[in-house]
Amino acid sequence: MAQNLAKPTAEMHPLRFVIERDEADVMRREMGLAAVTDLLPALVPAAQRMARPSISGYHVGACALGASGRIYLGVNVEFPGVPLHHTIHAEQFVVTNAAIHGERAICFLAVSDFPCGHCRQFLQEIRSASQIQILITGGDFSAADKYRPLYYFLPHPFGPSDLLNKDVPLLLEPHRNDLIDEEDEIGGGVEKREICVNGLGIMEEELRAAAVKAAMAAHAPYSGCASGFALAGCDGKVYSGSYIESAAYNPSVGPLQAAVVAYLAAGASGGGGVGEGIVAAVLAEREGAAVSQEATARTLLAAIAPKVRLSVYPLRSSAGTV
Amino acid sequence: MAQNLAKPTAEMHPLRFVIERDEADVMRREMGLAAVTDLLPALVPAAQRMARPSISGYHVGACALGASGRIYLGVNVEFPGVPLHHTIHAEQFVVTNAAIHGERAICFLAVSDFPCGHCRQFLQEIRSASQIQILITGGDFSAADKYRPLYYFLPHPFGPSDLLNKDVPLLLEPHRNDLIDEEDEIGGGVEKREICVNGLGIMEEELRAAAVKAAMAAHAPYSGCASGFALAGCDGKVYSGSYIESAAYNPSVGPLQAAVVAYLAAGASGGGGVGEGIVAAVLAEREGAAVSQEATARTLLAAIAPKVRLSVYPLRSSAGTV
Ligand SMILES: [Zn+2]
Ligand SMILES: [Zn+2]
Repeated sequence: MAQNLAKPTAEMHPLRFVIERDEADVMRREMGLAAVTDLLPALVPAAQRMARPSISGYHVGACALGASGRIYLGVNVEFPGVPLHHTIHAEQFVVTNAAIHGERAICFLAVSDFPCGHCRQFLQEIRSASQIQILITGGDFSAADKYRPLYYFLPHPFGPSDLLNKDVPLLLEPHRNDLIDEEDEIGGGVEKREICVNGLGIMEEELRAAAVKAAMAAHAPYSGCASGFALAGCDGKVYSGSYIESAAYNPSVGPLQAAVVAYLAAGASGGGGVGEGIVAAVLAEREGAAVSQEATARTLLAAIAPKVRLSVYPLRSSAGTV
Repeated sequence: MAQNLAKPTAEMHPLRFVIERDEADVMRREMGLAAVTDLLPALVPAAQRMARPSISGYHVGACALGASGRIYLGVNVEFPGVPLHHTIHAEQFVVTNAAIHGERAICFLAVSDFPCGHCRQFLQEIRSASQIQILITGGDFSAADKYRPLYYFLPHPFGPSDLLNKDVPLLLEPHRNDLIDEEDEIGGGVEKREICVNGLGIMEEELRAAAVKAAMAAHAPYSGCASGFALAGCDGKVYSGSYIESAAYNPSVGPLQAAVVAYLAAGASGGGGVGEGIVAAVLAEREGAAVSQEATARTLLAAIAPKVRLSVYPLRSSAGTV
């Protein structure tokens, strides 16, 4: 495990996880680079330094260019105490980060290491995945090496087309799951319970609404069990994420993981542990779901924010049972 | 999702999940096949029919030839109620099945579909993985097609060599984790508590010993947190499995999943649900582990065998903390 995290190339810019198009252009010119696709590998070492590999110590960084011109960063996040399947890989982080920010397509991706098979599979959820251009900055390729399509790294993939009709929306495409918020139905609107944690008044209703909205946007075409998660930070802000399923099942990103991506991408955890500063948590998921996230989310939440109580809100399908 | 499960080719043989070398040779001759490597794809449709895809309905079958000459079958197993990462893929089943039976290498593998990226990654845990010869019986390849090395399906892999020294044993190689069984230490041997379930007397001690033995053989080089699981069937027999880690973390096979493979491979569940007939369950894992399986095993056990109580036994590392 030889990792070179030295030689930062973008140190002048305190890096964030989302870089606007104009800002990327300024960085590119300041660094004397011809194209924004050259900027992606140049940012990878800085991304690596933001990784949270608390079990492996192995820092992975990823930078993706969206169709909007925005650049998204991603890092690997590991969770001590719980099984390894909770881990978020840098490639999963960068795609989830793009999804949270409404990006509609990812065209180019630079990664510090060869993506593992799990990530090559996860990327299949994006339409035209096989054409995503990938550049590896480490390993026996170098930054001077060229972009290659995902198909090169995962030939003959198993993917959404093996299980879904063509008109089912894929990841990064607009989703509007047919869910009914039960609390909204009963009595026309939920009682606004205020929960106070760490001296801050966090509106339970605001968290619930964010989790429900995230569930509506979830990519869960394989199980039909959409879910969303919302976290409150001690700054009083709400961070939410949508569950993302993989055609190969296991590489799916859980709703709490997606919310953790939103939390970290906003810089909300500061320099501490992944769950530092989280004061409240809400899961919204389909009632009686074939796939329930609740127990698993409780296990992970207990590991990263043991004092936080999880509220769970059930959602019904407006089309009846799926 | 067009799956052709008709045209069984090995129906005369009531198939089991492990086929001895001599038996394989008889089958090969009866079917007029030149080589045992031709027998693997011929058995795939029968394997597919034994799959347990209770969420997707998508049957995957895999047949592997071990260095011993034995043939191992594998199927996909899905678990309604719990998140998709609990799923066992056919390729993971077949490798876990081989590990349980002490196989030391897998040379050839026939699968009904293109392996997903997650499985191509999981296979990396076997030494010389890149040389495992794989044949796909479905998709746009056909049974008449040829074996291709795993490297063809996962070029430039991320794998054990990125994280481990060369002398660390890989999957299917002998493991002897340095664990001390705390109950054995205290007072020289555990009290033999007899637990009675379904009118059967199951020795807790027998289950505990099987789980501890499985933990000793676990492949957990990345976290150092070995674990093992043992199940008792209503036939009074004990089925155990060792936790198997992946260098890419998420594709790891949990200890309960490994025990489920042993249970299904022995035909113990009959034709019912995956957990049908399970009457007792024991987990042995490292105390204070950076990666604890307990909560996750409880979640899955509650889904497949809700009436079964889980006993957990802590193990200590003889080398102190890892
Ligand atoms: Zn990965
Ligand atoms: Zn697979």
